[in-house]
Amino acid sequence: MGKLLIVGTVAFDEIETPFGKTDKILGGAATFIGLAASQFHVDSAIVSVVGEDLPQEYLQVLTRRNIDISGIEIVKGGKTFFWKGKYHNDLNSRDTLVTELNTLADFNPIVPKAYKNADVIMLGNLHPSIQMSVIDQMETKPKLIVLDTMNFWMDNALPELLEVIQHIDVITINDEEARQLTGEYSLVKAAQKIHTMGPEYVVIKKGEHGALLFHNGNIFFAPALPLEEVFDPTGAGDTFAGGFSGFLAASENITFENMKNAVIHGSNLASFCVERFGTERMESLEKEEVDERLHQFKQLTQFDIQLA
Amino acid sequence: MGKLLIVGTVAFDEIETPFGKTDKILGGAATFIGLAASQFHVDSAIVSVVGEDLPQEYLQVLTRRNIDISGIEIVKGGKTFFWKGKYHNDLNSRDTLVTELNTLADFNPIVPKAYKNADVIMLGNLHPSIQMSVIDQMETKPKLIVLDTMNFWMDNALPELLEVIQHIDVITINDEEARQLTGEYSLVKAAQKIHTMGPEYVVIKKGEHGALLFHNGNIFFAPALPLEEVFDPTGAGDTFAGGFSGFLAASENITFENMKNAVIHGSNLASFCVERFGTERMESLEKEEVDERLHQFKQLTQFDIQLA
Repeated sequence: MGKLLIVGTVAFDEIETPFGKTDKILGGAATFIGLAASQFHVDSAIVSVVGEDLPQEYLQVLTRRNIDISGIEIVKGGKTFFWKGKYHNDLNSRDTLVTELNTLADFNPIVPKAYKNADVIMLGNLHPSIQMSVIDQMETKPKLIVLDTMNFWMDNALPELLEVIQHIDVITINDEEARQLTGEYSLVKAAQKIHTMGPEYVVIKKGEHGALLFHNGNIFFAPALPLEEVFDPTGAGDTFAGGFSGFLAASENITFENMKNAVIHGSNLASFCVERFGTERMESLEKEEVDERLHQFKQLTQFDIQLA
Repeated sequence: MGKLLIVGTVAFDEIETPFGKTDKILGGAATFIGLAASQFHVDSAIVSVVGEDLPQEYLQVLTRRNIDISGIEIVKGGKTFFWKGKYHNDLNSRDTLVTELNTLADFNPIVPKAYKNADVIMLGNLHPSIQMSVIDQMETKPKLIVLDTMNFWMDNALPELLEVIQHIDVITINDEEARQLTGEYSLVKAAQKIHTMGPEYVVIKKGEHGALLFHNGNIFFAPALPLEEVFDPTGAGDTFAGGFSGFLAASENITFENMKNAVIHGSNLASFCVERFGTERMESLEKEEVDERLHQFKQLTQFDIQLA
């Protein structure tokens, strides 16, 4: 059982999709990452910051899944990061209606002593300087550092992003962001360019169209499971990252072959996340359901062409 | 070696992509289908219509690949169907600049006697009444009838399209067309509805995002091979259909398991088609290249998760 250190937001989300809307509910990258990683035998901790307005029950959602929350700073009188968004009819695009950074504006992450020797670090989408600060606090070199980011940081903190990217092993990024970061339309060429920026492994997420893993000239593709209904895509990318990093931390096997499995596990868990609003589906997810759906993934992509 | 009957256009295409433009070159659904199918041990024939303006060399492109062209009517003084289009920068969308039906306007397909007992019929994108006429001319019931169509016929000949769809086994259709035909956004639900219209097998093509095969509650997914460069997408869908139907005709094995292989073969061949303008790449394609790339397809999707 490896140690997984997760850095990212724990937040309030307010979501509207064609199927309904929510009040303020539990969200945030670290939340989704942590819940997904908790499907594996992993000793994980979240480093984050919240305000006093975050209900105690929300933190219990995490502790109930054996996630260490000693690294979640609770700012007295502070307010928790809040995001409000509305998805378009096709669920592939959304408008951000409100972003209130609140306590996140002055977030100074403190890695708990017990996790300064984590095997795997999963850096959720955050300002790249915060991501870098976490790497700097480690006492032993992690076996693997995974970083997720988004176009906002390319627009607003590109030098810091390029700096932290030099220190990581895996970047997870969506297709449009990969194109923006590299100026290459072809995802194959985009991945090649990103390799030269630092990461030995590049994961390009294509939402409902699956995910690509690039390493040393090799490519692996994991489809998204075709679903009858996608209810709320919020957190799908973070759930993917949590499944990916959680599986690798638990298996303690950092090879391209095993990373393929990690991509499948991540895709598999993401397929559950989108079935309900927010974290609802992930909070109650059982191992049996997860394994059953892994079978579907095998059936979905396995074929029998005999090659010489 | 099975008999494959191909119905579709043999045409002039004039193409502009971000990488360049062509004069009038050989195109048409039946052309791409035939070239792709010729990669397999299959006795295939094309039923089509052209004008006297089609250069003899263009027909020789087909006969050189052992495709029977006795069913291609050459109309005296007639002009060949002409399509001119321009692709947008992302190559995922295009504007049709010119469509001249010419001899296609009065096309009355005549199935050659020797192919009225074909094992497989591949009905390329054409007016659904023409597709139906071909089915009606068969003397023995084909083992498999595959139909490709597009949104234009949903807009302009829906009753005829719904009629022919009742008589086929496999429909190949792109994602947006599947949504238009059924009113369902979810491709899983769309496929379920299409099953009730007739076809036991539904193939939904997603372009660079691969293709899905639906049958009896089962789903199989074939990715498109991630390419460094897509040069010209023209004919990719038809090449897919040609590889799919050609492989099934050659193997004479119509099962869901073998249809998975057919989808992979179709995707594999389509990945070559887009590397050059028009038919250029497909005309010179060698078996060794095809097999080599099939290996890449296996590597792209194979993973090792052990399941109970």
